[in-house]
Amino acid sequence: MGRWEPNARGRLEQAALELYVERGFENTTVAEIAERAGLTERTFFRHFADKREVLFAGSAVLGDLLAEQIAGGPDTAAPIDAVMSALEATGALIQERGDWSRQRQAVIAANAELRERELIKLASLADVLAEALRRRGVAEPAASLTAEAGMAAFRVAYDRWVQQPGNRNLPRLIRESFDQLRAVTAGH
Amino acid sequence: MGRWEPNARGRLEQAALELYVERGFENTTVAEIAERAGLTERTFFRHFADKREVLFAGSAVLGDLLAEQIAGGPDTAAPIDAVMSALEATGALIQERGDWSRQRQAVIAANAELRERELIKLASLADVLAEALRRRGVAEPAASLTAEAGMAAFRVAYDRWVQQPGNRNLPRLIRESFDQLRAVTAGH
Repeated sequence: MGRWEPNARGRLEQAALELYVERGFENTTVAEIAERAGLTERTFFRHFADKREVLFAGSAVLGDLLAEQIAGGPDTAAPIDAVMSALEATGALIQERGDWSRQRQAVIAANAELRERELIKLASLADVLAEALRRRGVAEPAASLTAEAGMAAFRVAYDRWVQQPGNRNLPRLIRESFDQLRAVTAGH
Repeated sequence: MGRWEPNARGRLEQAALELYVERGFENTTVAEIAERAGLTERTFFRHFADKREVLFAGSAVLGDLLAEQIAGGPDTAAPIDAVMSALEATGALIQERGDWSRQRQAVIAANAELRERELIKLASLADVLAEALRRRGVAEPAASLTAEAGMAAFRVAYDRWVQQPGNRNLPRLIRESFDQLRAVTAGH
């Protein structure tokens, strides 16, 4: 390990995203990201496997948060409500990094390979939710259905939030999306 | 174009799947697929872009079927019921190729890249459904939510069907899955 750099990870994330927005993801190198952040390539590779992972490393954090939220929720909550609460907490975390999240989404939207990667990461979050529900005693296929339907509600809310020019509240959009999910599946 | 070969496409599909099951997807070449089918490589490439597309070419057919079913359904159907009917029709088509579909799924399950490709193809079917609902006048975000939740119900039913050793009816599993989706989103 080299010497400690204050907030190296955050500086690399910020530098990478700036360059992806300015030049496009394809046209940015790890050397340029490190230079912009005032760090070395070696430091970059201590934090990220490659330039793509700068955009997706956060999904492991979100997965851990979701699993903890489901495990720590009240015993009495219906599974769909446990999933909604867990995703609201996730939404609050994403909202804290509002500008970064929106710029990240613009970079992903512009690149087919990144869009596919995002889809796969979101599917893995549905798997985390289903596993956490099974640990709480929810049987299959209810666990998978609740997790997948919940992620569908989350994705729709997240897309709306990304596309909003203003500063709407992501956790509130998630709650609204779950209400709409309930309505559309009931046939209203 | 070369001379016409009777059912070349079907023979190539069958030969490819046999080889993928016997040797693994990675260890099979297009030359071997063509040889097993008694056809030339040139004929293979008239039908498929590469050996991966043998497994995924069907999803374009399913997408067309879904769009037609939604467009041609009764005006009075609730969007979720229109989606369920369209997916039941798709399930009937998949059921007709039961052994092929199950073997195909085993090949996909054994390969990370193929699992990702399957995820992307299923997501594109959700996009087809959402677009077909919007054409029928369903507003956003209801169209996307209905399509995504419906695909979640379909995926869960399909996984159960693939894993069943017996010959259970896929359209019926899909209907059951929609009933369960309604129950879990209502909090039961």
